Amino acid sequence: MSKKILIVGGVAGGASAAARLRRLGEDDKIIMFEKGPHVSFSNCCLPYHLSGAVESHEDLVLMHPEKFFNQYRIDARVHNEVISIDRENKSVRVLDVITDKEYTETYDKLILSPGAKAIVPPIEGIDKVDLFTVRNVVDIAKLNYFVKDLESKNISVIGGGFIGVEVAENLKEAGYNVTLIEAGKQIMKPFDYDMVQILHKVLDDNGVDLVLGDKVSSFEENTVVLESGRRINSDAVVMAIGVAPETKLAVESGIELGETGAIKVDQNYMTNDNDIYAVGDAIEVYHALTNSTTRLALAGPAQKQARAVANHINGMSVKNTGFIGSSVIKVFDYNAASTGLNEGLIKALGLNIKYDVVRVIPSDRVGLMPDAAPMHFKLIYEVPTGKILGAQAIGKGTADKRVDVIATVIKFGGTLEDLTDLELCYAPPFGTAKDVVNHAAYVGSNLLHKKFKQVYVTQVRELVEQGECIIDVREESEYEQGNIKGAINIPLSQLRDRLEDIPTDRPLYIHCKSAQRSYNASLALQQLGFKDVYNVAGGFLGICLNEYFNDKSTGREPIVTKYNFK
Amino acid sequence: MSKKILIVGGVAGGASAAARLRRLGEDDKIIMFEKGPHVSFSNCCLPYHLSGAVESHEDLVLMHPEKFFNQYRIDARVHNEVISIDRENKSVRVLDVITDKEYTETYDKLILSPGAKAIVPPIEGIDKVDLFTVRNVVDIAKLNYFVKDLESKNISVIGGGFIGVEVAENLKEAGYNVTLIEAGKQIMKPFDYDMVQILHKVLDDNGVDLVLGDKVSSFEENTVVLESGRRINSDAVVMAIGVAPETKLAVESGIELGETGAIKVDQNYMTNDNDIYAVGDAIEVYHALTNSTTRLALAGPAQKQARAVANHINGMSVKNTGFIGSSVIKVFDYNAASTGLNEGLIKALGLNIKYDVVRVIPSDRVGLMPDAAPMHFKLIYEVPTGKILGAQAIGKGTADKRVDVIATVIKFGGTLEDLTDLELCYAPPFGTAKDVVNHAAYVGSNLLHKKFKQVYVTQVRELVEQGECIIDVREESEYEQGNIKGAINIPLSQLRDRLEDIPTDRPLYIHCKSAQRSYNASLALQQLGFKDVYNVAGGFLGICLNEYFNDKSTGREPIVTKYNFK
Repeated sequence: MSKKILIVGGVAGGASAAARLRRLGEDDKIIMFEKGPHVSFSNCCLPYHLSGAVESHEDLVLMHPEKFFNQYRIDARVHNEVISIDRENKSVRVLDVITDKEYTETYDKLILSPGAKAIVPPIEGIDKVDLFTVRNVVDIAKLNYFVKDLESKNISVIGGGFIGVEVAENLKEAGYNVTLIEAGKQIMKPFDYDMVQILHKVLDDNGVDLVLGDKVSSFEENTVVLESGRRINSDAVVMAIGVAPETKLAVESGIELGETGAIKVDQNYMTNDNDIYAVGDAIEVYHALTNSTTRLALAGPAQKQARAVANHINGMSVKNTGFIGSSVIKVFDYNAASTGLNEGLIKALGLNIKYDVVRVIPSDRVGLMPDAAPMHFKLIYEVPTGKILGAQAIGKGTADKRVDVIATVIKFGGTLEDLTDLELCYAPPFGTAKDVVNHAAYVGSNLLHKKFKQVYVTQVRELVEQGECIIDVREESEYEQGNIKGAINIPLSQLRDRLEDIPTDRPLYIHCKSAQRSYNASLALQQLGFKDVYNVAGGFLGICLNEYFNDKSTGREPIVTKYNFK
Repeated sequence: MSKKILIVGGVAGGASAAARLRRLGEDDKIIMFEKGPHVSFSNCCLPYHLSGAVESHEDLVLMHPEKFFNQYRIDARVHNEVISIDRENKSVRVLDVITDKEYTETYDKLILSPGAKAIVPPIEGIDKVDLFTVRNVVDIAKLNYFVKDLESKNISVIGGGFIGVEVAENLKEAGYNVTLIEAGKQIMKPFDYDMVQILHKVLDDNGVDLVLGDKVSSFEENTVVLESGRRINSDAVVMAIGVAPETKLAVESGIELGETGAIKVDQNYMTNDNDIYAVGDAIEVYHALTNSTTRLALAGPAQKQARAVANHINGMSVKNTGFIGSSVIKVFDYNAASTGLNEGLIKALGLNIKYDVVRVIPSDRVGLMPDAAPMHFKLIYEVPTGKILGAQAIGKGTADKRVDVIATVIKFGGTLEDLTDLELCYAPPFGTAKDVVNHAAYVGSNLLHKKFKQVYVTQVRELVEQGECIIDVREESEYEQGNIKGAINIPLSQLRDRLEDIPTDRPLYIHCKSAQRSYNASLALQQLGFKDVYNVAGGFLGICLNEYFNDKSTGREPIVTKYNFK
């Protein structure tokens, strides 16, 4: 028996649901309503129009209504806004925003995929600047068109999330003077404070004026005024502080919202009305690691939800194991990926999870290969089970590859031991025989089994200030190119011959460049009778990265004689 | 109590074992014997010296004996060959090949990591050519030094495995005229015949003269003579037909070999002597998917085995879940990765496994992004369980990433359903919201649940020859740029209006460019009452790639009007 299915919203979730519905039911009547002028555009590609990577904004539209009809017999109605739902009579009221006429469509099943809208707070003087948001093709075309004519090229981007950072990067690539303003002390919440310092430096290195921990207090003529009093000349302002789920239609129709303020759905993405489903940025999902609901404005989950809904409407069972929030971003020549839990999230949510952390900086491929570069990798696992909870990878190489492997391990509930056991592809241009993720797991296993102890790069400033005994086991030539103030240099190659230089009455903090040699040194010293030995996870490279941007932006005294990022 | 551990062989497995042994036992005496001049060199990087990617052959040596001693207190003795083992007295006899003196060392534990040697068959006239093999730093330095002086620049490489292909590529990059001769009908056995056609074309496109299915019958003065009678002028010949495990020492000492002719070990890599372990290319390992022993000359497994042995010697338990053989190779601007089983291996071993195959060609990133390129992906799964058995990925993008994810899924015994459920990183420069692997799993699920039927690109020639009804659902403009001879063009966008053009009395074989539109068309036709509908997995792009090199090298009649690789 053929069904009539209406879909509110024609972008990621809506369009995916429609296509799958057609494949499963050739006879069904499928109508997709979109209040804007475009269905099926690539939200995620919007920022790339600003740099010209996507030349024409029209290319951002992946499929026009005619093609939806011709290829899928899907009736995609743009400029048609669903303004109310009559759940009792299973019908919606639609406004054609061009003709301003209203009409009614009935449904057997209704799918809500209205997305989310950019949050624009009512800041004083907001009408005194040229303000833009980036949610759809019209938004980005407008912004691009406007900035092309600017003489002074000063643009402020407010908000350091995915969209803010991508917009800042693409505008910078296009030659603008970009200030990125983030009220919090870090950009990109999927990364922990220590890891994100790398991205802070990358933005800074590439000439983005990064302002952290300072909030917009008001706008004046072409000017952003911050709470610190700083005034930033801005011919255009892009507001990217976040998005809020589009829930108006749902609320007015008695569709329940969850505790996050987004539409509440069950395991089949069904709302409190059995004939109404919801997917995408407008809903809240179950987070498989926090065991609570969360909002994830990500395209991958939206597509998966859409497919699940189409399946469920057609009587197929749905597997819903929750979400873990894998994501990746390109920031100039760096790639930064993350999945699962991070320390910031565990603390923010007050999760009752006992965990420990590995931070390593192996080479992303064999060091001899051209383009070999450090891969900064942080792994979070549960104690004492060793169950993998999350990972973050940042580097010039394939950070996404390493995090995809971890995301896969998490999905199977895998442990450190499973991770050491993975047999991954290796050839010199792609990785090392013991890949980054294997390496991290080995370190984690050693930690878990108490083979050694560690402190973290973030603790080093305090150690220096307290005058603790820090031993730098790099070679002398490396030490001379920058070292921790007060650290003793005893190269690993001389360690066993210079044991008398090492204090026996106090804790020892051992570091090298990337924590590999210092790990060997730590194990040797422990076995040679030194009682309280700590390896500095992250090494000198991690310390420099962790300190650099904070030192630079606050003017505080560095703890290193000279930064060394090589 | 301190132990004395001897290691035979100082490259991948030996050096890794030594370092781990030191970390676990600071007091142990560790001696590593290497008959050649170098320990700890990068075998896998050897070919990259030929193109200059690794400039100096000295860089290939990662660690010299002095450093082993200074950093790890490991006594690494180069030019020292272990010539016999006295198992009863737990000692080895060592020949110092420089002084020609012999001496004895006792051991508590002995680790054999002798590697494998290049196979050089006694072909007639072998002394009439300048013949090289590529197993160590001396080999590659010699080869590189020799070819630098060549005037005519003609080099033949015999054998199309990893080393042969990498040597051919790097010599070609360096400007030589390279002929790659493979006796079998394909290079690179980790890939199935249909997938490897892509690599055949890549080599051909890059000017490597690829000879398949022809064997060296003899050598004459600077000439390789093939069985076909073809004569190839060759100022240098690189023999890379394979390697044989170095088992002489083991055999002479009564260490058992397995059925593959390599050293037999148990789950802890212990030989039939409880005090003698073996690792690396010289041993046979348990293949977790074939449930039989196999030889894997791969660096990753060697390192893992070495670590396991060090752990076991120090009383730690070893997890040995077997191996699945993940690997990757760069071939000019293409990356090709594989893991687990492939069809060729299943057939060659006569495995009693019921399986099916997905072949898809999605974009490796969002199509709008610069550098977006097709990712050829083949997934093999068990029927009816859907358990993932293997995958192959070839493309300009991150083939290694996709295969690493599959390798991880295989390790957990995951299924198609698990694979659809993976939540991978996505941003436009890295992939698509539904990544290649998710996409393949969706197709596989639909196949497994009999939502549609497929034929494979390799079957198309026969379909054409038998005059079967092939329907090309691409747009007319695409059809005109090359199509299957005799195929009817009914674009998906016109399909439902042209049902009367479609025969109802015979099987229909539907294809488009990459099998996505044809999949939609197949489902529609099935539901519209057409009984026997097959989607052509791999699409026109797959067909062109599958036919091209065979057509070119055999001169046979193409089944397409014009190849189209875009």
